[in-house]
Amino acid sequence: MSPKITTELLKQLRQVMKNPRYVQEPVQAYIVPSGDAHQSEYIAPCDCRRAFISGFDGSAGTAIVTEQHAAMWTDGRYFLQAAHQMDSNWTLMKMGLKDTPTQEDWLVSVLPEGSKVGVDPFIIPADQWKRMSKALRSAGHDLVPVKENLIDTIWTDCPQRPCKPLIMLDLSYTGVSWRDKIVALRSKMAERKVMWFVVTALDEVAWLFNLRGSDVEYNPVFFAYAVIGMNTIRLFIDGDRMMDPAVREHLQLDSTLEPEFRIQVMPYGSILSELQAVGAGLSPKEKVWLSDKASYALTEAIPKAYRYLTPYTPICIAKAVKNAAETEGMRRAHIKDAVALCELFNWLEKEVPKGTVTEIVAADKAEEFRSQQKDFVELSFATISSTGPNGAIIHYKPVPETNRTLSVNEIYLLDSGAQYKDGTTDVTRTMHFGTPSAYEKECFTYVLKGHIAVSAAIFPNGTKGHLLDSFARSALWDCGLDYLHGTGHGVGSFLNVHEGPCGISYKTFADEPLEAGMIVSDEPGYYEDGSFGIRIENVVLVIPAETKYNFKNRGSLTFEPLTLVPIQTKMIDVNLLTEKECNWVNEYHQKCREVVGAELERQGRHEALQWLLRETEPLGRAQ
Amino acid sequence: MSPKITTELLKQLRQVMKNPRYVQEPVQAYIVPSGDAHQSEYIAPCDCRRAFISGFDGSAGTAIVTEQHAAMWTDGRYFLQAAHQMDSNWTLMKMGLKDTPTQEDWLVSVLPEGSKVGVDPFIIPADQWKRMSKALRSAGHDLVPVKENLIDTIWTDCPQRPCKPLIMLDLSYTGVSWRDKIVALRSKMAERKVMWFVVTALDEVAWLFNLRGSDVEYNPVFFAYAVIGMNTIRLFIDGDRMMDPAVREHLQLDSTLEPEFRIQVMPYGSILSELQAVGAGLSPKEKVWLSDKASYALTEAIPKAYRYLTPYTPICIAKAVKNAAETEGMRRAHIKDAVALCELFNWLEKEVPKGTVTEIVAADKAEEFRSQQKDFVELSFATISSTGPNGAIIHYKPVPETNRTLSVNEIYLLDSGAQYKDGTTDVTRTMHFGTPSAYEKECFTYVLKGHIAVSAAIFPNGTKGHLLDSFARSALWDCGLDYLHGTGHGVGSFLNVHEGPCGISYKTFADEPLEAGMIVSDEPGYYEDGSFGIRIENVVLVIPAETKYNFKNRGSLTFEPLTLVPIQTKMIDVNLLTEKECNWVNEYHQKCREVVGAELERQGRHEALQWLLRETEPLGRAQ
Repeated sequence: MSPKITTELLKQLRQVMKNPRYVQEPVQAYIVPSGDAHQSEYIAPCDCRRAFISGFDGSAGTAIVTEQHAAMWTDGRYFLQAAHQMDSNWTLMKMGLKDTPTQEDWLVSVLPEGSKVGVDPFIIPADQWKRMSKALRSAGHDLVPVKENLIDTIWTDCPQRPCKPLIMLDLSYTGVSWRDKIVALRSKMAERKVMWFVVTALDEVAWLFNLRGSDVEYNPVFFAYAVIGMNTIRLFIDGDRMMDPAVREHLQLDSTLEPEFRIQVMPYGSILSELQAVGAGLSPKEKVWLSDKASYALTEAIPKAYRYLTPYTPICIAKAVKNAAETEGMRRAHIKDAVALCELFNWLEKEVPKGTVTEIVAADKAEEFRSQQKDFVELSFATISSTGPNGAIIHYKPVPETNRTLSVNEIYLLDSGAQYKDGTTDVTRTMHFGTPSAYEKECFTYVLKGHIAVSAAIFPNGTKGHLLDSFARSALWDCGLDYLHGTGHGVGSFLNVHEGPCGISYKTFADEPLEAGMIVSDEPGYYEDGSFGIRIENVVLVIPAETKYNFKNRGSLTFEPLTLVPIQTKMIDVNLLTEKECNWVNEYHQKCREVVGAELERQGRHEALQWLLRETEPLGRAQ
Repeated sequence: MSPKITTELLKQLRQVMKNPRYVQEPVQAYIVPSGDAHQSEYIAPCDCRRAFISGFDGSAGTAIVTEQHAAMWTDGRYFLQAAHQMDSNWTLMKMGLKDTPTQEDWLVSVLPEGSKVGVDPFIIPADQWKRMSKALRSAGHDLVPVKENLIDTIWTDCPQRPCKPLIMLDLSYTGVSWRDKIVALRSKMAERKVMWFVVTALDEVAWLFNLRGSDVEYNPVFFAYAVIGMNTIRLFIDGDRMMDPAVREHLQLDSTLEPEFRIQVMPYGSILSELQAVGAGLSPKEKVWLSDKASYALTEAIPKAYRYLTPYTPICIAKAVKNAAETEGMRRAHIKDAVALCELFNWLEKEVPKGTVTEIVAADKAEEFRSQQKDFVELSFATISSTGPNGAIIHYKPVPETNRTLSVNEIYLLDSGAQYKDGTTDVTRTMHFGTPSAYEKECFTYVLKGHIAVSAAIFPNGTKGHLLDSFARSALWDCGLDYLHGTGHGVGSFLNVHEGPCGISYKTFADEPLEAGMIVSDEPGYYEDGSFGIRIENVVLVIPAETKYNFKNRGSLTFEPLTLVPIQTKMIDVNLLTEKECNWVNEYHQKCREVVGAELERQGRHEALQWLLRETEPLGRAQ
């Protein structure tokens, strides 16, 4: 992988930063955040502005270009990747390390007095604007909104914004109709005494209307906004998608509904002017509810006194707690996904020794097996298929330049998942197709101990996920090891593979408490730069736990693994497991055998079934 | 314990809330925080305004009185105590429970439109003012400073502010001279480009000048402020304490020092006007560093653009990392403290069966034994001596009305500590002088497992204490149990028994990372209302840990117990311990035997030594 040469692009960008056609006054720095106008984590090609200007295409990162410097902030998952993809014009700022300055501190240290720092107000979230603006102002600089995106002005072959057909989900998938979701939302609005709610996140729009799209790869969403009043529903969406009779029926656009359920369809680009009109027409005490992560542009459309901002919207929280139809869908999706992976691993076991399977071939084969399953739509993220040293690049994606051949001498890490109409999957397994070294087994076993410590944890109702993060690290810490990423993220139901408001990470504190019905990943790891990577990931469902006592009648929670794919026992040093951990592995494998075994049988996949049975033999403790 | 009758007092307070002699405009609510003008946790009798108005005298709580209501917010440690001490005029707001409103939300729900909420600007920290003021403003109310404290206007027999003699600490105790501390502070100020630093916390003033006092019971501090410039030192302190020749010599008040080390002594009450003068004379870019917890009054003295506010001051952080002299002092203090407790427990074992030992008698006896030790100054907090159901009142203090007799049928919990000139102690032991029930042993053993999980934890450099909190709860959580308080707090070196910036609690996120040399408590517990309380507390020192590997060369930390008092093995259900936990107990007891045994021998306390030897017999595992 050779870095992108950005000398010419940076020169052009620095020119438009002073060009009165685009900026009222010259800006001495320009910020290129990684999101789109909806603060999405995964974005459409037309929104990949930070990747265009820097070459670094990981999912998280912020670029800042000044007259003299170009710097990129990203987190531990991407240190190696960013270093590979960027040329020497760029300085990598490793977030989370002690000596790395914040963007604000760095700007203050490099800018000449009284500088202007520009940013696209549609791309920067309001909370980030506020923090950045305050820090710059207190150092004598100014953060200024630049209406025209400066990257777009130099991006001559920028792709078009996608506008793909929609998928309608009926009650058997969603459990609740969009009308009932609107009713529930309005009741939350009434509780907080707000008159309007602005839906800015793409997955929230999709969830609310029981629609899905494919405007963004891997995320079944479509470009739209919605503004929900107590008596009105406005949907801002482009293209002829609203001409589809099935969509019209799903949204009841041609029915004579009660007025408060009639959806007004408006052009996507009219959101700002419509919201400004709403803002201008507010009576005293009429508040407008927005996410504090909504764009600065939309937030500013509502006068400050009328804004009601929260870190998590009522849709975000409702969406996180899956109902029975969604939970059942997620279970079905994970069983089908496990069938595909049993086929894959069985195939790899036979093919890897031949020396013909590359990371890309393995990833394609995984997709092929998944696509054979019912209701398969697409992958849920770019498959991380990595062997040997590539495994240490935490969010690695194989490309021809880095593509390595799997062998019986190296660890193979596969982190992959799919979107099925009934659910979203995300699973990581780390395998060895030869004989792992004692050290590799030792590290794998510490990671497994951490995985089990979270998965089997029992904790009181009301506990926030970040309080469980250290459980995943304890076995690694005991030996002086650790990993530089969080332990888990929320997972959507045929929606984004990363979603809020819950997760398991030392980094968050503002997460919402875990509740029965929430779904998160449990994915500790261990990585040695230049050598190997290990990660064990299941998607798990929060469920009530039975306990011997019940302090203050609070009730307890625990996790049920939805992912049912064998964990390679060859990689386990059984002597490092406690009896309880050993039993956990055996019970987990027993469940894989029963549930996935039955489905393999039903699908007539006998060879993969034999593989499953071999891989789920109970562990024997050496003691 | 009967509640304080507050009907008449509340009537008087509501009158002065409307009296133009004290308030410019009537206030519809008045906030009575628990602190003093230095945001101290422990306060002098003249500052116990919240206790005066409500009867509730726990260490944490905020009272708010409106025309119709009187409400008290406190945390889980004090739910029972507050309920006992307050009459029916008061509503108890249980912080940390899901349905308890915040003070702001509650005010908004009860106040008539456009209300004024008053508070003493010297008592409320600036960060609390800001949050409260913002919330009230957005609901159409106003937070207003009331110069004269309204409680003081109705508190006819309010005691005088104390002004006791000072204690000088030489280098053998402090390790660093006050001059060198000033030099280090100025270098931190230069790093942050600030010209002035305002020392508002009493323990920070005491630490900086290597002085101690006794103005506040249990906390060896004295009422003072300091303002440190790059070339000036101003100490604001009252009384004839500065006439003491020894103090004058210690501070070199009569020497011909370089000007930047000459201390200007000024009246305590002149801080506001002096600070306002500093504020008025600032040139552009001259910043003044204050804690964001400094009072609103002092913070407002500095124009906003010149303020540099941080949650932890450089003194707070420097003070937390103990140097070799301080660490050695803390070790000595804990050995002496253990000698006193061995004497006490040996005495209790003989006396309790006679039925003559009450909670107060036991507490007094503990103080008597401690006072026999060298360099003993006073207790470090009010002794929690509690038996049976009183043990469930987490911060219980025995008074004649509640005083219970220790017996062979109930659990006894003693949480106590002392100030020695060489260090501060804080230790909790839970004992049974008869035969504990299987259930009591079970609960005790879960608490012990939590205590060990923290004490033996190994974690990377840079880890914040709150990430260790769940380790202390895991064994309890597994059985559906928990405790409603944090797991540990920072401990001063012959200073406050509670100090920042580190601790171990699910509640904090803004704590500073643990560093070698920091000292915290490790004190999980379990409490059953009306029945019993269990807590096991050691003071532990953060030390470097040896690990098998060393990821990213970060280094690891662990804890060394400074407290060396046997943990009653009679209370342990050995079958619930892992082998590792069993070894931990045995090694801990072996160390108690060696270190405290030698001191008992040296002091000729042979009976207590026999007790120690009995109590530190190794555990045998039944398996």
